[in-house]
Amino acid sequence: MSNGQPKGYQPTANSEQHLVLIMAGGAGTRFWPASREVKPKQFLDILGTGKSLLRQTYERSKKLVSADLIFIVTNVAYAERVKAELPELKADHIFCEPSRNNTAPSIAYASLKLQTKYPDAVCFVAPSDHIIQDEDMFVRDAQKAMHYAGTHDALVTLGISPTRPDTGYGYVQYESARTDDGIYPVVRFTEKPDINTAKKFLASGEYLWNSGMFIWSLKSVLQAFDKYAGSIIDILRKGNNVYFTEAEAQFLQAHYPATEKISIDFAILERATNVHVIPAGFGWSDLGTWLSLYDHLPADEKGNIRIHDPVMLDNCEGTLVHTTDGKLVVASGLHDFVIVCENDVVLIFPKDREQEIKALREELKKSGHEKFL
Amino acid sequence: MSNGQPKGYQPTANSEQHLVLIMAGGAGTRFWPASREVKPKQFLDILGTGKSLLRQTYERSKKLVSADLIFIVTNVAYAERVKAELPELKADHIFCEPSRNNTAPSIAYASLKLQTKYPDAVCFVAPSDHIIQDEDMFVRDAQKAMHYAGTHDALVTLGISPTRPDTGYGYVQYESARTDDGIYPVVRFTEKPDINTAKKFLASGEYLWNSGMFIWSLKSVLQAFDKYAGSIIDILRKGNNVYFTEAEAQFLQAHYPATEKISIDFAILERATNVHVIPAGFGWSDLGTWLSLYDHLPADEKGNIRIHDPVMLDNCEGTLVHTTDGKLVVASGLHDFVIVCENDVVLIFPKDREQEIKALREELKKSGHEKFL
Repeated sequence: MSNGQPKGYQPTANSEQHLVLIMAGGAGTRFWPASREVKPKQFLDILGTGKSLLRQTYERSKKLVSADLIFIVTNVAYAERVKAELPELKADHIFCEPSRNNTAPSIAYASLKLQTKYPDAVCFVAPSDHIIQDEDMFVRDAQKAMHYAGTHDALVTLGISPTRPDTGYGYVQYESARTDDGIYPVVRFTEKPDINTAKKFLASGEYLWNSGMFIWSLKSVLQAFDKYAGSIIDILRKGNNVYFTEAEAQFLQAHYPATEKISIDFAILERATNVHVIPAGFGWSDLGTWLSLYDHLPADEKGNIRIHDPVMLDNCEGTLVHTTDGKLVVASGLHDFVIVCENDVVLIFPKDREQEIKALREELKKSGHEKFL
Repeated sequence: MSNGQPKGYQPTANSEQHLVLIMAGGAGTRFWPASREVKPKQFLDILGTGKSLLRQTYERSKKLVSADLIFIVTNVAYAERVKAELPELKADHIFCEPSRNNTAPSIAYASLKLQTKYPDAVCFVAPSDHIIQDEDMFVRDAQKAMHYAGTHDALVTLGISPTRPDTGYGYVQYESARTDDGIYPVVRFTEKPDINTAKKFLASGEYLWNSGMFIWSLKSVLQAFDKYAGSIIDILRKGNNVYFTEAEAQFLQAHYPATEKISIDFAILERATNVHVIPAGFGWSDLGTWLSLYDHLPADEKGNIRIHDPVMLDNCEGTLVHTTDGKLVVASGLHDFVIVCENDVVLIFPKDREQEIKALREELKKSGHEKFL
């Protein structure tokens, strides 16, 4: 708990060491067939801007810290893709998990490793596949959070005003009347509530969505691991003498897979008592689904969205088309569809039923069509 | 005129010389994007049988005549495709039109050229892009027609019982009570009537569709050209001394383009008085549209048709999917659509509105996307 925080908090000159840790190991498949198991969405130019989401995250991070203080933690399978996407990144800034054990072990590993070089640093932990619309506002909120975390034993998250009772997010109940500095103690953190709970949260007006962006000192987060996820940190702390050495990979290969497969939200944030939230107004989407992408991008007068060219729509409404490599899509008579045209797969699906794509992917797997996944 | 034909006509031993002339110069684009200007539908395996329509036509022709009596007339632009599709065909069996002047000049040229070698032959003229379902019945009807044409000055067409007032066909009015040999004098040949006329024709029960398959002696068809399309035949007859020589290409290049651009139907069949028809029952489609292809192929219990694999349909009905090169198509929630997945184009269109694709193609041309046509 961080009672007694200073009233009327104002950002001051940056005297702490600030780092950014970008999490780029996710295997999100909800943008299938644009995203694949071998090329998840952080490596895609899903918005049609000419830059992958990872590169956008990296470039945004450079507004917070100098480039040599940006680190990426990813699955070893994606290390080459990260290098290809960010050729300017030094090789030892890419941290490789040898297995998929969810975000808690990933963050514990990266934090321990960073602490060997930057023991007093504050770390901004950023997912690699989100959209931020107003980057200036984002920078202001992030700097405020980093400064707060540099001066308090606090786990800070950036919170998003919820717009629907989404059951895929963590919900942060905060005490909006408690302070006037824009940084609020969190009463309760609830990861992925059921739909009725989510509806209550939304109606109460006291909840924000957890954006998945965390700000904390390495000390605070590692203390929290000690307290709430000791089994993970105990395993990984044994590597403290090998991080940033040639022996690291072998250590990780031997021990990392044994860590508990759990998210940072369940392992730490639901349990910790010193969580704080900054309500963020910078326009955010975690781009979890084609529908969320549709909601995020500007549509034409008929509600259609074309990502990449060429696309010709006739008598279509509310339809999102994502093509690739200059393939022409000609569609007519579709209302509220998602069309994704890849080199080897074409998907044509009702926008509001995209959650069913997952089952179709399972069918594909069972019927021997793994190569398309 | 062929009055006084023998009653109770029976096929006799084949004493005439029979040829097959396959017309493979069409640039049909109604199967776009599967068919292209550089690769029209006769070169496609549009049915998913493993054989192009041209090869199917060629193999069917071998049931009528020996392989060395099968000739192809095509546009010079398609000569290499014909060779690639029918590598067993001798080079001098491919007749090349240097320009697109429709079917009358094409048939006049091929007939004149064939007459220099086979002056007394009967020629079966076959489009290269039709479906014949019952080939045995087709062979019987074709042989009957060829024998009749070998013994009469008659222009014979195979007629199809109309199933709808289609305005894209020629209609053949015949005197069904006139003879009992199954070969009927044609009262009137009407190419592409308007819709009201087509409805009247259909209601009368006295009309058949012209299948576009013609059977005549070279003498009879060239006499008909002399009589009804003299300007065409006068130009091309000047080449009689160069056909089948090295000078032919140059002659054609110099003179063929000047021939009248007109179909054999308008030039000869609407005008001639010795047209006969054999009502054919062999199951026919000219595959003019995706809809006609849909009507022709067997559908699954939901009315869906998959041409080539892999295709996964979920909650789709009455939908035709044509994919290529093993591309996966996954579609959901589509009723009565055509989906065509090519390497560079994907088309998703309501089946009953496919006539509008032509206008879309024009738009593509205007907007600088000719490469997709």
